[in-house]
Amino acid sequence: MVIRIALIQLRIAGSKEKILKNAVDLIRIAKKEKEANVVVLPECFNCPYSAQDFEASAEEIPLGPTSLALSQAARDYGVHIVGGSIAEICCGKLYNTCTVWGPEGELVAKHRKVHPRNANIPEQFAVHEAQVISPGASYTTFFVGETKIGLGVCWDMRFPEFAAAYRQMGCGLLIYPAACDAYTGEMHWELLARSRALDNQVFVAFCSPARDSHAELICHGHSLVVDPWGQIIQMGTEFQEIVVADLVLKTLNEIREQIPVLEEKRNDLYELVVKK
Amino acid sequence: MVIRIALIQLRIAGSKEKILKNAVDLIRIAKKEKEANVVVLPECFNCPYSAQDFEASAEEIPLGPTSLALSQAARDYGVHIVGGSIAEICCGKLYNTCTVWGPEGELVAKHRKVHPRNANIPEQFAVHEAQVISPGASYTTFFVGETKIGLGVCWDMRFPEFAAAYRQMGCGLLIYPAACDAYTGEMHWELLARSRALDNQVFVAFCSPARDSHAELICHGHSLVVDPWGQIIQMGTEFQEIVVADLVLKTLNEIREQIPVLEEKRNDLYELVVKK
Repeated sequence: MVIRIALIQLRIAGSKEKILKNAVDLIRIAKKEKEANVVVLPECFNCPYSAQDFEASAEEIPLGPTSLALSQAARDYGVHIVGGSIAEICCGKLYNTCTVWGPEGELVAKHRKVHPRNANIPEQFAVHEAQVISPGASYTTFFVGETKIGLGVCWDMRFPEFAAAYRQMGCGLLIYPAACDAYTGEMHWELLARSRALDNQVFVAFCSPARDSHAELICHGHSLVVDPWGQIIQMGTEFQEIVVADLVLKTLNEIREQIPVLEEKRNDLYELVVKK
Repeated sequence: MVIRIALIQLRIAGSKEKILKNAVDLIRIAKKEKEANVVVLPECFNCPYSAQDFEASAEEIPLGPTSLALSQAARDYGVHIVGGSIAEICCGKLYNTCTVWGPEGELVAKHRKVHPRNANIPEQFAVHEAQVISPGASYTTFFVGETKIGLGVCWDMRFPEFAAAYRQMGCGLLIYPAACDAYTGEMHWELLARSRALDNQVFVAFCSPARDSHAELICHGHSLVVDPWGQIIQMGTEFQEIVVADLVLKTLNEIREQIPVLEEKRNDLYELVVKK
């Protein structure tokens, strides 16, 4: 089986209604014209990113307008949608949450960002996301065909143990909706995607918003898909576009046999204990 | 304090005597002309690499001619030498071993390669190093000034947990003498050095032999030094040369404060247990 993944590098501007309409249009194109079977949106895709407006844009899941639009699109086009992330409100708490919708419109999985962004880089930016959101408390996986997929949101990508845990669980593909700033993106975006893929011998997809130089958060763009050798299969520019890649899943086993790193771990010296 | 590290990308050809003389000449140049205070040699530097001849070239440590030459050079030039690796014989077993010599000529540390190379890539190469060498059973660290340095040999670089363990132990620099083939080197050499550095916020140095297209193992070359942001400070070509870089050690703390990933690990979800 081949997974054809489409990363929708969405331009995020205007009202939520307008953004959702644009997103659903691009989902339709990704399925109908590009023939993707998994479509991915970026982090915080339904509003221009703003720490201050995060709460105002929050929705309940699966009752809010974004959930309804994604569920409808998944059913209308018969496609898996990894719905980037949105501000979720639940029991008085805010989360940065990715929803996944199956081709019948059903909610397949929900991942709350586990590692809130925490960075303070002089003359660049300071973000302490834990002041706004509560962190998620679990791993999230789902299947497309026989392929187990692990989910992270943006900053989760900086934690190699989190990705390695997904490999232990049997994942073949890791998907991270993200909204990485252009400064750290330039240094780390490709590097993180490629190293998570190589170290764990999995496919990795990072989906970014398009770059908008007028936004509060100027995103890196360059959504990309990496193979289990750590090589880039497809990468976008900075603009709104759909990045499409075919994942030839049999290479997972081939590469894992050629360089069997998982079997060669030295559990007498170190051990990654996965707790949930 | 600044560590000035010199990676001696040695041309490995001819007799052991000739190679050792060349190595010592380059150590002298690294110290006297380049003013390095840490000089690094590549993996299996004292003989052209050959699985069949590995045993024939083996020496006891610290009694063999290579140990004596490195100890003498360290004392003569008053410099720390990370002596790449050599075939070590001890109690009837063979190891792939890195020795470290202090500026008084004393043996400071000894690291036996922990992860024997195991790869079988059709139409490229097949190596199952565990058929020849016994693996080491421990981490190896030493100090230069106040900087704790962690050692690996070549294939050890493919195991992120091993590098992360060194960060847990307080290392600021990881040094890997290596003899990576040109095929996987092209795909993985820079990626592994940069990701070990970024994920652990440490400096990383990989030291390769020069490329020799007539050798049994055609090495990648491109010895490199990476900073704790995962950016390359210096990288060599394919030829014999000395790659020199200044490690501005205060950036370790700066970067660890700017993006405090170690403090943000989710030990409720995963935990890297270091066992020795």
